[in-house]
Amino acid sequence: MSRFLSENYSKLIPYTPGEQLNEKVIKLNTNESPFPPSPSVKQVVTDDLLDRLKLYSDPEVKQLRNAIAEQFGLEAENVFVGNGSDDVLAFSIMGFCGAGGKLCCPDISYGFYPVYADLFGVELEQIKLKDDFSIDINDYIGKGCNIVIANPNAPTGLALTVDEVEKIVASNPDNIIIMDEAYMAFCKQSCVELLKKYDNLMVVRTFSKSHSLAGLRVGFGLASKEIIEDLNKLKYSFNPYNMNSVSIAAASAAIADNEYYNKNIDEIIRVRELTKDLLSSLGFTGTDSKANFLFVTHPEFSAEELYKELRKRGILVRYFSKPRIDRYLRITVGSAEEMQALTDTLAQIIKEVKE
Amino acid sequence: MSRFLSENYSKLIPYTPGEQLNEKVIKLNTNESPFPPSPSVKQVVTDDLLDRLKLYSDPEVKQLRNAIAEQFGLEAENVFVGNGSDDVLAFSIMGFCGAGGKLCCPDISYGFYPVYADLFGVELEQIKLKDDFSIDINDYIGKGCNIVIANPNAPTGLALTVDEVEKIVASNPDNIIIMDEAYMAFCKQSCVELLKKYDNLMVVRTFSKSHSLAGLRVGFGLASKEIIEDLNKLKYSFNPYNMNSVSIAAASAAIADNEYYNKNIDEIIRVRELTKDLLSSLGFTGTDSKANFLFVTHPEFSAEELYKELRKRGILVRYFSKPRIDRYLRITVGSAEEMQALTDTLAQIIKEVKE
Repeated sequence: MSRFLSENYSKLIPYTPGEQLNEKVIKLNTNESPFPPSPSVKQVVTDDLLDRLKLYSDPEVKQLRNAIAEQFGLEAENVFVGNGSDDVLAFSIMGFCGAGGKLCCPDISYGFYPVYADLFGVELEQIKLKDDFSIDINDYIGKGCNIVIANPNAPTGLALTVDEVEKIVASNPDNIIIMDEAYMAFCKQSCVELLKKYDNLMVVRTFSKSHSLAGLRVGFGLASKEIIEDLNKLKYSFNPYNMNSVSIAAASAAIADNEYYNKNIDEIIRVRELTKDLLSSLGFTGTDSKANFLFVTHPEFSAEELYKELRKRGILVRYFSKPRIDRYLRITVGSAEEMQALTDTLAQIIKEVKE
Repeated sequence: MSRFLSENYSKLIPYTPGEQLNEKVIKLNTNESPFPPSPSVKQVVTDDLLDRLKLYSDPEVKQLRNAIAEQFGLEAENVFVGNGSDDVLAFSIMGFCGAGGKLCCPDISYGFYPVYADLFGVELEQIKLKDDFSIDINDYIGKGCNIVIANPNAPTGLALTVDEVEKIVASNPDNIIIMDEAYMAFCKQSCVELLKKYDNLMVVRTFSKSHSLAGLRVGFGLASKEIIEDLNKLKYSFNPYNMNSVSIAAASAAIADNEYYNKNIDEIIRVRELTKDLLSSLGFTGTDSKANFLFVTHPEFSAEELYKELRKRGILVRYFSKPRIDRYLRITVGSAEEMQALTDTLAQIIKEVKE
């Protein structure tokens, strides 16, 4: 720490991203897609586009906001685009809960929510998940507090239904409810339809998981025009040109390719269910994840030991050394081949220990 | 505005970016380069790179930090990379001046500094430039306050020498001095050498102007390892993956191509000086700009009228309707052909009015 950092931030504990190893590994630790982006991405990243990088990108991000709006039956004015959904979450929590506001979220969820609260001076109430890691919606009904919920939740993979979310949104009309749908594509439902009825809902999505573009950094928020206007006001006061021209062009092309992505999503769901069965036959139990990852534990083996053992053998999964979940592994659903390698390796580890 | 926006931000007046017109115009309003990026950019943005967008980008931005460090004779730990230099400035002003801290800057300078101050709750003192738009360094010596100065300054183009900057830095040892060198490549000097002597200096640079990559959004800050560590702490608490993989690869390739960019920079300087003479012969006066733009006024014509007249004829320049500079135009130095078109058009306008 330098001697210049503001006292406000001196005790800040930043978010820890999953490991990015250069070595050749089977990477099942950060919920990326095993499939490359839509071929249309290559078609739009032309030499001409690269030459035009000499000009600023469009601060209004019109092309991409239109493309997203079209997919969801909304207007461009209902869409805020960020440099990854973290950017969208940051501006949202800053703007709607910042400097003395209050926010609620589940105690086990995306690890970034408490970091944002800390950064922006937000009072955070973390509400305990039930023992089976599910959310009790009664904890949130009529809460009278801004709320952020990952749906499906991470790292549990458990999802609330649209009806359940509606009860939360309807019963907190004076607070903003942020539904972080980073993994929703793998659940095949969405709260976007509720936007037509409620002005206190924001739905956050990302291109990082279902759309195989984690490295491009594109996320978006869908909400009322007034909420989007507020987010743009913050963006224009922080970083007006937050989206580069390659991201705008590539993401616009990608989101239109429903055929390609629906096929990939269906395959990930198929492999997810298959892997659940294989892990179950090895003695693992876990949540009924509706995301592109599994959250599993084994009664006989320490999750930390399994994590280390897998790592030695070239398979990277995510282990959180945190209360209540430190016996669990979060395993991204990769390709069928990768998941076969995972379950084969786990079977081998178990066999070696037992011998 | 929605009914959810925090009161802190309800009165925020965001930065206004220069116009981005879709029509075919000669665009001399946002200080972009007339030249395309280095051909090496196209070489590194391969199909393979685009396929690998399925994976997260490197949050440590190692490749690009190494490439930048090498150019400046520093170590990667002295380099912070942002999604445009606005990102770097935002984190810096937030971290080192935020929440009750104080910042000084010239009253006529980059219009974003007051916006940041407002956003992050920083007390801002704007120090009046002299009547000739130059900075009186005595206003800053021993000031005992954090300072941000664009050098060369915008929109004046006037530059402080390294010796002058050193006096400011040395006399404010307990405050951070941010030198925003967005336009420094066109001035052929730099305060980077002072980093070896002073731990309270940060130099901010961008790929947007000299490196023809405005649309890629890459900027960086150079400072002590402790200051960079602080900036990373904020970044990891806001948006850890702030740089996408295309930006990292393309900017790393670009910054190594000194031959290409030095040639472009020399040409822009040549055309700048030529245009100064041509404008002078039309009766314009202005500052001795060391940047890639000119800042000029005409004794007989309103700058606003000239701006509008040029716009009608397909040439876009920047006009600021602000006290003290509302008789001036800021004109980006484009290609020799574009500047010929500009001066020809201005000559024509003057001729028409006089007839």
